[in-house]
Amino acid sequence: MKVLITAGGTSEKIDSVRSITNHSSGRLGCLMAEEFLKKQVTVDYVTTASAQHPTKNKNLKFYEIDGTQDLADLLQTLLKKTNYDAVIHSMAVSDFAPAQSFSQENFLEKINHLIQEKKGPLVKSDLKQLTQASPTTEKKISSDTDQLYLVLEKTPKVIQLIKRIQPTTLLIGFKLLVDVSKQTLVATAKASFEKNQADYVLANDLAKIKDNQHIGYLIDKSGQLIGEEQTKEAIARLIAQTVINHNV
Amino acid sequence: MKVLITAGGTSEKIDSVRSITNHSSGRLGCLMAEEFLKKQVTVDYVTTASAQHPTKNKNLKFYEIDGTQDLADLLQTLLKKTNYDAVIHSMAVSDFAPAQSFSQENFLEKINHLIQEKKGPLVKSDLKQLTQASPTTEKKISSDTDQLYLVLEKTPKVIQLIKRIQPTTLLIGFKLLVDVSKQTLVATAKASFEKNQADYVLANDLAKIKDNQHIGYLIDKSGQLIGEEQTKEAIARLIAQTVINHNV
Repeated sequence: MKVLITAGGTSEKIDSVRSITNHSSGRLGCLMAEEFLKKQVTVDYVTTASAQHPTKNKNLKFYEIDGTQDLADLLQTLLKKTNYDAVIHSMAVSDFAPAQSFSQENFLEKINHLIQEKKGPLVKSDLKQLTQASPTTEKKISSDTDQLYLVLEKTPKVIQLIKRIQPTTLLIGFKLLVDVSKQTLVATAKASFEKNQADYVLANDLAKIKDNQHIGYLIDKSGQLIGEEQTKEAIARLIAQTVINHNV
Repeated sequence: MKVLITAGGTSEKIDSVRSITNHSSGRLGCLMAEEFLKKQVTVDYVTTASAQHPTKNKNLKFYEIDGTQDLADLLQTLLKKTNYDAVIHSMAVSDFAPAQSFSQENFLEKINHLIQEKKGPLVKSDLKQLTQASPTTEKKISSDTDQLYLVLEKTPKVIQLIKRIQPTTLLIGFKLLVDVSKQTLVATAKASFEKNQADYVLANDLAKIKDNQHIGYLIDKSGQLIGEEQTKEAIARLIAQTVINHNV
């Protein structure tokens, strides 16, 4: 049996010294890898340099990525090469990547140029000009301005690639919200199945992740709540057991 | 003898899951700490969770920070409490911190509102309204928009605090540029003395930092080039020796 786990958080470069980073310690990913390895499951593990790594093991193979595009490229390669019994996609992926940056002066100039051209309210397609006109080329953004304007654009939804390439794999997605009710969390997770084509979603709330506590709800694609756990260890066991049960 | 070293790179929160991070491995900081510890110098070491940490030592004390404001607060406390023979400020500090974020729709609405009010070109003070109107309150920015607009504002220059609180300490600043000529690099470093009140500046270029190579120029406040090194180890030795020579 073979699984693919993604863990940690992606980073998107702003310039050569700054990035936008999605925080994720990668600890839950490590615990999941260890649960699978205990059961003699082979694990391909995709993570980032700064995330915690599981202990080396002969059945464990590491891959490191930085940004969302790197991740998409690597997953395409891996999914085309290897059949996985399950893909557990726990990596925190940036929804947006920096497309353009402007100093306050430069931004004013661009906006005033648009205003002059339009002589009326701006619309979305006008804003597109901001990012299309001149791609970011600065090596290090100068600090010689009072404000900096960053325009970010949506990254491809990596989770949607997975079933497109391997429709038969068992896909476990993750949904992280911040400080919402259990009802909202579970409802949002249920609503995500249509887009991500996952078989299970682990729904969790950042406000309920601290120290040894990590509250997680595992929901299947029919919307049923399969399990509710209080720690990363228990979530890791629940996910590993759910995947293994599907494959025996 | 007692020194204060800062190392690593700050992170500025965008929301509860995303940050803008300045990259710095912290390895040069570790090597400098080790050089001082070898010579029985006591070291207070300020770093970030993700940076490399020097090996524990009875003469070494760690302090961890995240953002620029945390760093400024901690340095104020430390500098008021302890007299340092030298402060080596190698931390990569964010020049800008996120002040406001807008979805594409929300940004258009704000800009169109400003256009309607002004009936003419916008000026800097108009842009200020963007950040003053409604501070960021989102716990996690919704991904339900095609573009995201981040407005960042300048952070306080932490290095300028140091001599203001301890005018007699020996201050070593760092200047990092990216892919410039040696001439530009040295000239920019020389120009920085007036603002940062440093006694020495280590000028380096990210394009010349790779694997075991780290080219650095140590310049004193009279503008003289004190030394030129090719590795982090040699830079660490040069800085430690320069500081120790001042105090014997």
